[in-house]
Amino acid sequence: METKLTFDSSYCPKFQAAVELLGRRWTGAIVRTLLGGSVRFGDILHRVPGLSDRLLSERLRELEGEGIVSRTVFPEVPVRIEYRLTEKGRELQRIIEAVDTWAGKWTEASATADVASGH
Amino acid sequence: METKLTFDSSYCPKFQAAVELLGRRWTGAIVRTLLGGSVRFGDILHRVPGLSDRLLSERLRELEGEGIVSRTVFPEVPVRIEYRLTEKGRELQRIIEAVDTWAGKWTEASATADVASGH
Repeated sequence: METKLTFDSSYCPKFQAAVELLGRRWTGAIVRTLLGGSVRFGDILHRVPGLSDRLLSERLRELEGEGIVSRTVFPEVPVRIEYRLTEKGRELQRIIEAVDTWAGKWTEASATADVASGH
Repeated sequence: METKLTFDSSYCPKFQAAVELLGRRWTGAIVRTLLGGSVRFGDILHRVPGLSDRLLSERLRELEGEGIVSRTVFPEVPVRIEYRLTEKGRELQRIIEAVDTWAGKWTEASATADVASGH
């Protein structure tokens, strides 16, 4: 028997804005990496297979602009720059976990992801 | 004080495949609409502002291919075709709800969504 759905399925501009932001190429993987704590640019690049320098810069700038990521410059020699999630960013964890649960149950690690990771 | 995160933030191909699928333009809005129950092509088109015929066809084909949406043809005159979520599709509700919660708390109905909806 099908579960009765009690869900307001009408179009929602806030939902749409969030999905368009989070759905951008690599944003999910970058946020996922940052959920582990603050990291440097090169750490993210190293941990996300297939992600380029250029796209990572672009995504981090967007996420900073949205108040999801903060960037701290440590005045050392050489200068050290770390990225971390703001509170707004850390609260994405529930979405990422929901995707993990669904993906773990329903998907194969697909050819798409293999192509994306450059293998 | 920052909450201690207990989350495996390492790269996950299944997560990546799911995010790439769900992050495609309009997929979120289409799945959201289908969570209300089975609908006809024109209903979805009507409910999602800014979505074109062509992209809706493409997305529905992709979602059918992924086993997220099923398509039923009723042999009436004129023929009636309805789309509904499979079990795999209905279980996306948790992700959509998590996005809703986050978006409701943290986002404005942004210019992006306004542009997307053609206003």
